[in-house]
Amino acid sequence: MPDNRGVAYMGPGAVEVQTIDFPSFTVQDGPGVPQENVGRECHHGVILKIVSTNICGSDQHMVRGRTTAPEGLILGHEITGEVVEKGRDVEFLDEGDLVSIPFNIACGRCRNCKQQDTGICLTVNPERPGAAYGYVDMGGWVGGQAEYVMVPYADFNCLKFPDKAQAMEKILDLTMLSDIFPTGYHGCVTAGVGPGSTVYVAGAGPVGLAAAHSAQLLGAAVVIVADLNEARLKQAASFGCETVDVSKGDPKDQIEQILGVPEVDAGVDAVGFEARGHGEHASEEQPATVLNSLMDLTRAGGKLGIPGLYVTGDPGASDEAAQEGSLSIRIGLGWAKSHSFATGQCPVMKYHRDLMQAILNDRAQIAKAVNAKVITLDEAPQGYDDFDKGESVKFVINPNGLVKS
Amino acid sequence: MPDNRGVAYMGPGAVEVQTIDFPSFTVQDGPGVPQENVGRECHHGVILKIVSTNICGSDQHMVRGRTTAPEGLILGHEITGEVVEKGRDVEFLDEGDLVSIPFNIACGRCRNCKQQDTGICLTVNPERPGAAYGYVDMGGWVGGQAEYVMVPYADFNCLKFPDKAQAMEKILDLTMLSDIFPTGYHGCVTAGVGPGSTVYVAGAGPVGLAAAHSAQLLGAAVVIVADLNEARLKQAASFGCETVDVSKGDPKDQIEQILGVPEVDAGVDAVGFEARGHGEHASEEQPATVLNSLMDLTRAGGKLGIPGLYVTGDPGASDEAAQEGSLSIRIGLGWAKSHSFATGQCPVMKYHRDLMQAILNDRAQIAKAVNAKVITLDEAPQGYDDFDKGESVKFVINPNGLVKS
Amino acid sequence: MPDNRGVAYMGPGAVEVQTIDFPSFTVQDGPGVPQENVGRECHHGVILKIVSTNICGSDQHMVRGRTTAPEGLILGHEITGEVVEKGRDVEFLDEGDLVSIPFNIACGRCRNCKQQDTGICLTVNPERPGAAYGYVDMGGWVGGQAEYVMVPYADFNCLKFPDKAQAMEKILDLTMLSDIFPTGYHGCVTAGVGPGSTVYVAGAGPVGLAAAHSAQLLGAAVVIVADLNEARLKQAASFGCETVDVSKGDPKDQIEQILGVPEVDAGVDAVGFEARGHGEHASEEQPATVLNSLMDLTRAGGKLGIPGLYVTGDPGASDEAAQEGSLSIRIGLGWAKSHSFATGQCPVMKYHRDLMQAILNDRAQIAKAVNAKVITLDEAPQGYDDFDKGESVKFVINPNGLVKS
Amino acid sequence: MPDNRGVAYMGPGAVEVQTIDFPSFTVQDGPGVPQENVGRECHHGVILKIVSTNICGSDQHMVRGRTTAPEGLILGHEITGEVVEKGRDVEFLDEGDLVSIPFNIACGRCRNCKQQDTGICLTVNPERPGAAYGYVDMGGWVGGQAEYVMVPYADFNCLKFPDKAQAMEKILDLTMLSDIFPTGYHGCVTAGVGPGSTVYVAGAGPVGLAAAHSAQLLGAAVVIVADLNEARLKQAASFGCETVDVSKGDPKDQIEQILGVPEVDAGVDAVGFEARGHGEHASEEQPATVLNSLMDLTRAGGKLGIPGLYVTGDPGASDEAAQEGSLSIRIGLGWAKSHSFATGQCPVMKYHRDLMQAILNDRAQIAKAVNAKVITLDEAPQGYDDFDKGESVKFVINPNGLVKS
Repeated sequence: MPDNRGVAYMGPGAVEVQTIDFPSFTVQDGPGVPQENVGRECHHGVILKIVSTNICGSDQHMVRGRTTAPEGLILGHEITGEVVEKGRDVEFLDEGDLVSIPFNIACGRCRNCKQQDTGICLTVNPERPGAAYGYVDMGGWVGGQAEYVMVPYADFNCLKFPDKAQAMEKILDLTMLSDIFPTGYHGCVTAGVGPGSTVYVAGAGPVGLAAAHSAQLLGAAVVIVADLNEARLKQAASFGCETVDVSKGDPKDQIEQILGVPEVDAGVDAVGFEARGHGEHASEEQPATVLNSLMDLTRAGGKLGIPGLYVTGDPGASDEAAQEGSLSIRIGLGWAKSHSFATGQCPVMKYHRDLMQAILNDRAQIAKAVNAKVITLDEAPQGYDDFDKGESVKFVINPNGLVKS
Repeated sequence: MPDNRGVAYMGPGAVEVQTIDFPSFTVQDGPGVPQENVGRECHHGVILKIVSTNICGSDQHMVRGRTTAPEGLILGHEITGEVVEKGRDVEFLDEGDLVSIPFNIACGRCRNCKQQDTGICLTVNPERPGAAYGYVDMGGWVGGQAEYVMVPYADFNCLKFPDKAQAMEKILDLTMLSDIFPTGYHGCVTAGVGPGSTVYVAGAGPVGLAAAHSAQLLGAAVVIVADLNEARLKQAASFGCETVDVSKGDPKDQIEQILGVPEVDAGVDAVGFEARGHGEHASEEQPATVLNSLMDLTRAGGKLGIPGLYVTGDPGASDEAAQEGSLSIRIGLGWAKSHSFATGQCPVMKYHRDLMQAILNDRAQIAKAVNAKVITLDEAPQGYDDFDKGESVKFVINPNGLVKS
Repeated sequence: MPDNRGVAYMGPGAVEVQTIDFPSFTVQDGPGVPQENVGRECHHGVILKIVSTNICGSDQHMVRGRTTAPEGLILGHEITGEVVEKGRDVEFLDEGDLVSIPFNIACGRCRNCKQQDTGICLTVNPERPGAAYGYVDMGGWVGGQAEYVMVPYADFNCLKFPDKAQAMEKILDLTMLSDIFPTGYHGCVTAGVGPGSTVYVAGAGPVGLAAAHSAQLLGAAVVIVADLNEARLKQAASFGCETVDVSKGDPKDQIEQILGVPEVDAGVDAVGFEARGHGEHASEEQPATVLNSLMDLTRAGGKLGIPGLYVTGDPGASDEAAQEGSLSIRIGLGWAKSHSFATGQCPVMKYHRDLMQAILNDRAQIAKAVNAKVITLDEAPQGYDDFDKGESVKFVINPNGLVKS
Repeated sequence: MPDNRGVAYMGPGAVEVQTIDFPSFTVQDGPGVPQENVGRECHHGVILKIVSTNICGSDQHMVRGRTTAPEGLILGHEITGEVVEKGRDVEFLDEGDLVSIPFNIACGRCRNCKQQDTGICLTVNPERPGAAYGYVDMGGWVGGQAEYVMVPYADFNCLKFPDKAQAMEKILDLTMLSDIFPTGYHGCVTAGVGPGSTVYVAGAGPVGLAAAHSAQLLGAAVVIVADLNEARLKQAASFGCETVDVSKGDPKDQIEQILGVPEVDAGVDAVGFEARGHGEHASEEQPATVLNSLMDLTRAGGKLGIPGLYVTGDPGASDEAAQEGSLSIRIGLGWAKSHSFATGQCPVMKYHRDLMQAILNDRAQIAKAVNAKVITLDEAPQGYDDFDKGESVKFVINPNGLVKS
């Protein structure tokens, strides 16, 4: 049995690479593992040798101490890898298959999974609907910023790439299928983006950039990306987006300069609860800023797609209401404009096959859009640090050296 | 030209019947009429002799002084009547036709109307998308709690009943097509109600009762109606609904007693911004109570239909945020459950023809569900008063004595 | 190991009850079993003691010799039963559970299953997408008109009734969840039936009656059922449907008498390829009659739901084109009316849970609508015979005497 | 009043430019005008000075004598022009506005128009649902291959370009909004094309090319265009499509070479009833070839979009059944694959605004895709001739010299 190493969360601001257990088909006790899940047999699982595994903005929420993540949690939910071992109940995968893993763990057998709502699977997390690898409150499944990981319900969860050699050539694009590309895309789909739409994406971090590129793939006429980080806005502009610098005042004025009207058809929140204010309030955390701003600048009848994370508990929030996830939202405005709002984790499986096809046929250049940068497993802590400082990159960890530059 | 009389709002708590102008095809200046609309030619309109016109819960918001409605405003947006005169541009209606009028005024020619979003027509209200008869901020169109009213864009807006005699026999049901029945139905449709659903309707006022009956028509398996008014709950039970008395504690416990599980598939907010608290807080106004409660009791993946009104300005609210329509909403909870939220005025035209068919073919008994009670025009002020006290009736004004008992 | 007995197809017109193997978790060779399926391991399966199993109109196609079904095929794809043994990979079912089985066998892991298209699962039938129990060309899975049957991918396929005792009280309704109720419902859903619709269902056999009752559940305003069998029309009338006797001439005239207009909103084909002509042609087989008639009598913009079976090979057809499933269809008419057409096996899983909820909460009385009649396993051959003669009943086989009268 | 000239159909193969009446706001008697429409007042109309008006493949059906079009009919339903006069009831247009006109004439006031089904408007054609300019059986409205034309219900029908100068720069793209671009797009939308789809478009005439470009705009992964005309296939290849030459045998083999599998996700029929056979039958007319081929090569669960025209009467068809629009369709195959079929005229208004946005923001190059070629009004007869011979161009008539080269 080979060794295994993974990236562990060791408290606010602290991340380190540790030697960890090689995965097995039985859930072991550990940080964040609900007792009901301990000992769970996963003969339906596969063990992957990880080819690539990305650092996600939502990992940052944990590392910044803005969640109740336990120390010792092995991080990582954006996983692409090669099957090296399969459980006895796996029928449609073979050793050597190269697969993309949705960050949401799903059983494929419950009511929600049957309706493509794999983000809220009812059986994989005893504490609430929905699970993920290496994530707080998400069932305690071991994360994949590691050399090896176990993927349960593998026949259901794995997306096999049809041609391994071809896939390895596009691996920096395909690695985005596990989360960020579908998540950005989901934001656009639920916001009603289609051919001819004008779209405003709040946030130019990786999810925002993925949403912007998704909007292009969906045929949007104009894609506007907003942020207060200059480097990120520059990145958005690099692949054809218009930009709004919210540190410079009301986004509506800037939208009007771009479109001739101060509103868009569709709004995407790619920021979530750690939002900062606009204009003069750009240095303050104002968790409802993005939602309220989207209602203001999205046309009547428009939809808001909200892939940005809002949490049920935020120990680091500045006021008591926000600590339990309650924000002061201008719902009267949204109501007057007949807005609708779509929230929640992206059900990756709903989209990943289509997006794979787009990548394999050169219709999407997502790695370029999010500025993918390959690092080693040992460089992961530095990657967390750089990402936290606002560097406009998407870090792709290459734990087994299989991604060639 | 006959005389005309109508119900005027004369300040908080004050409503009176006045002699008013007979309608014309030109918009006259008056209370709440935007200057850009004054003088607007409406050769596309018809003048109706009103057969029935109902008092709505949203009229109450104005009469209670919870809006910025101007004194002198003629109230009434739930209108059914007979065409007595038609403008030169009307092509598909004739004098004598009996028609139901959607409360939303719509031009039928703008982008939104073309997409069935008649609740946010772009041309009938210079101040914001969307207009209505006799309503604050809704374009200043003269209301229909009167003997006569002018209906613009009549070919587009009017729903003609196919057989006048048959329609007069079911007039107490058909009068609900102008607002309340489609509004309740819209709440259910946007909440995803269908055959087999379990549904929770917050509020047993007329909209809530209409939503409950709509859920039945849509095939719901179990319809639960919640309120803290005993008479209204009894009314809900009278046509087969289960009930929850929110003054008696957490609705989830009561839901569990009914369904065996503490959650429903679909949630409808038929209360809006004048909500009160639950349990021990039942006497306090807590404007976000219903929304937060619906997130708590609707299953992950469920939808919230929100026909209950939330406003952009509420001078009577207890705190500053609520005065501008901002409420403390537990969005983190909704996000964790992948909820979606649909808000806004019901676009009546999307549904009224289907619901008419349901009524004419005895598939819906909406008048019975909402407990319709016919009154004269002169009794309207008393009706407002009784309704405000929580009487579980839907008042139908019979201004020309055409509704026979 | 208990004995097992099942209903075998023994050639055109011949059906007999035989002693057969007790089911195992390995697919055995046998009539109609593709060689690639022989030896397939099904540790994901359960063995059911069958509580009820119905005779279906599509069984009749085989028994009449209108298909290439092999002799010795054990029939039966409408199965409800109790789990008596479970494979090692089954996680969410227990012995003693009472479950309904969709007639379509589906793996829950392929592209189509993930999109709820369980009627065309890609992995359970090596010969084409889609499989079923006891059915020609459907993968060779042993049928369930028997005492016991093996159900593969049981966690995915089985619908467990929440309360066994309650379920046994409604077993004659619940037994319809395996095929006929969802199939009729699917016809209506794909035809666009909803509240207020006028619906024409061609065929008053069990599927037609199930479609008619489904239309009622979906809120249809008027449901018209057409046939040329008087007893079946009487059955349709017994639960509130209007009827059209197609032996008496053009359905459009009869529709006009009912509705005042000679067209309906939605058309459902519950007949399929063994259709007979209308009016004077009522004794001739005219396989495209129903499709062409539906285009004639459905309004422009309407949809046609086609649950009625059309086959790729019909050795008994009168002409060569029909023998390979080609019919003379008046597509020019449908095109002029912008019709759309939905075909194919019902994906039962998409609907069965909702319909179960409707049954358990007394919103649907499907057993009464289709006139369920319980018979013993030994009476099955007689049941086939009676059904073939046009008796207006739905035969429910009670192979283990568990259904009490 | 200026003179007017237009292109008249003068019998099979004969087209000529004639002096015709200047349009008025009253429908005049003339070739193909239903008597009920004579004298119809159109104060809701505008008169356009035509900027561009295209020759359509469906015009060819008439000119080839494959319809019952009357002699003297002024042709042309693809119209873009400038408002030079407006009826008294027009409210939202002004003289000088540059507008695109959907080929379907629609009132905006009937049940179908209210549901965006403008292709089957119930009031503009007394003979059947749906009308068009200059088209057989479509209400007798005077065509627009002319200098001037009257457009009824102008507020509803016209799409105004936001900036006239900008629009004139892109006029060769924008002229495709009246029919061909939305029609191709509708074929793709109804076939379920989206990001990642593999699409097969039968026919590389202008509609096929427009469908192919639409598929690209919708994000399709691979677009395959089939024809037996080499020049047209070359045109398809010029903007990134794969091609299949159906004269060279079974399309499935060629698809397999392109995709690795012999089937596509979505099929579009851009040919219609004048289809020819494949392979050795390429010189014979086989009207059901395309439909049957699409069922063969589209995957189970796929959809068929059928913008290609099928007619209710084809006097030139080779057999009696085809003369009344009945074709021998292999429905059994489609049924076995759970295909759905969407037919009918494209409701242009549903799409034209979005596609305009795509053009104005450089997301679509439709003129290039269909190879637009500008000709004068006097060159129109030659254009008809060249187009009939299979030249791979889309002829844009420039009747007033307003399109500058």
